[in-house]
Amino acid sequence: MIIIKVGGGKNINWDYVAADITSLVKDGKKVVIVHGASEKRDELASKLGIPTKTVVSPTGISSVLTDAAAIEVFLMAYSGLVNKTIVAKLLSHGVNAVGLSGVDGRLWQAKKKGEIMIKENEKIKLLRGNLTGRVEKINDRLIRLLVDHGYVPVISAPAISHESEIVNTDNDFATAVMAGSLGVSEVVYLFEAPGLLKDFQDKKSVIPSIKKDKLDEFMQFAEGRMKKKLLGVKKAFELGVKKIYFGDGRVKNPITNVLKGNGTLIS
Amino acid sequence: MIIIKVGGGKNINWDYVAADITSLVKDGKKVVIVHGASEKRDELASKLGIPTKTVVSPTGISSVLTDAAAIEVFLMAYSGLVNKTIVAKLLSHGVNAVGLSGVDGRLWQAKKKGEIMIKENEKIKLLRGNLTGRVEKINDRLIRLLVDHGYVPVISAPAISHESEIVNTDNDFATAVMAGSLGVSEVVYLFEAPGLLKDFQDKKSVIPSIKKDKLDEFMQFAEGRMKKKLLGVKKAFELGVKKIYFGDGRVKNPITNVLKGNGTLIS
Repeated sequence: MIIIKVGGGKNINWDYVAADITSLVKDGKKVVIVHGASEKRDELASKLGIPTKTVVSPTGISSVLTDAAAIEVFLMAYSGLVNKTIVAKLLSHGVNAVGLSGVDGRLWQAKKKGEIMIKENEKIKLLRGNLTGRVEKINDRLIRLLVDHGYVPVISAPAISHESEIVNTDNDFATAVMAGSLGVSEVVYLFEAPGLLKDFQDKKSVIPSIKKDKLDEFMQFAEGRMKKKLLGVKKAFELGVKKIYFGDGRVKNPITNVLKGNGTLIS
Repeated sequence: MIIIKVGGGKNINWDYVAADITSLVKDGKKVVIVHGASEKRDELASKLGIPTKTVVSPTGISSVLTDAAAIEVFLMAYSGLVNKTIVAKLLSHGVNAVGLSGVDGRLWQAKKKGEIMIKENEKIKLLRGNLTGRVEKINDRLIRLLVDHGYVPVISAPAISHESEIVNTDNDFATAVMAGSLGVSEVVYLFEAPGLLKDFQDKKSVIPSIKKDKLDEFMQFAEGRMKKKLLGVKKAFELGVKKIYFGDGRVKNPITNVLKGNGTLIS
């Protein structure tokens, strides 16, 4: 089994991704897809007059602040618009896709973080009423049930808390926990860059390979969301994943391309 | 197996519905849920400045006009916000719910009606570019796979066309086709009225039972959406369903209540 996490940027070419997944499935590969939808979420939030609020943790990791209104926008963009559009695209390429959120069948069960520490104007503050969570438990059986019967699950946040509340969660971290739980050895992350860049403004500065025990050294090159992605990667290795690929979701054959060595391999 | 179709009105009490489904499942009953989301769809459409447009067929059946923008609103409200909120509610009551749209795994495959005849200002007109479809084929195997493994599928429109486009479809008609395809003998429809009313303004005028071959006589009592519901019911009987119950989704024990005779039984 292979897990392919595709970012939510607007320049991701889902026709290329779908065509590549079609050939993986034809080769007998079992595939699980995780997708983002940040662009569509932000677009919808701004149309509805509920702009996405970002907070920064004391250690400098930024995340989206999630209240009840933000959860509604999240569900509409991720579980509704984007998930089903991707599923239809995959079906049109002959992939037997089934879209699920982390809520369905307690697929991604999370520990709710009702209170978080944030850094605002150089001050550390405690913020309450936050509907986010960290995925701790995966409903492996549901994923295997679908995959063993020829389906390709297409999964995204939100998750469900132990207390059955819908909570926002980090897709990259959840992907890592899911990979560990399913005993998957390879995970591909596709986004809008040719790999992990040494200089994020220089598209030619792709770092071709990183030893997993040297990951901390590379955290300095990571900007914004990429920093969070690397935290997910660290978690994945802790949970037994062997190889993680970072590659470009905008080019033809994005998956086979990165598996052939175009991009960044962390192992 | 029993199919329970719950309307999209804002006064449906999902806690009551969920509690009742919990006891059905505990009694070993296999349950499939279909839900509407018309209130939330209309609310979202108006917030986004894309009000829901209704057209009337030459025979007087009204339906929602669906263009690409309407499909996006539909996905957000039905597949995103409402579907996942219902799933979380059911999970909180201990029901192992999995939310799906008609798109997922080609669950509801429809024949696209790209052109429809409408009546406008007493004139009959041909309208193009319409993204609706009539469900013709059900992915029974996916429903059975989930149900046989202890899950309760929670399904709603949209559907997928034979050409893999996302199309709006009538939930009641799709429920009928699904019941026929699964060989289900009982279908419960819950909405915001105590049953089929002889006078839709008199809540006490519930028609307790209707013989299925007398359905046409009752079409005269049906207003607006109820007319469409009865067309779904006629289809269900054609496809072998034995008993159809109409009952109130706002009261305690709404399902057991209607099965006990409170509401309208069509058989």
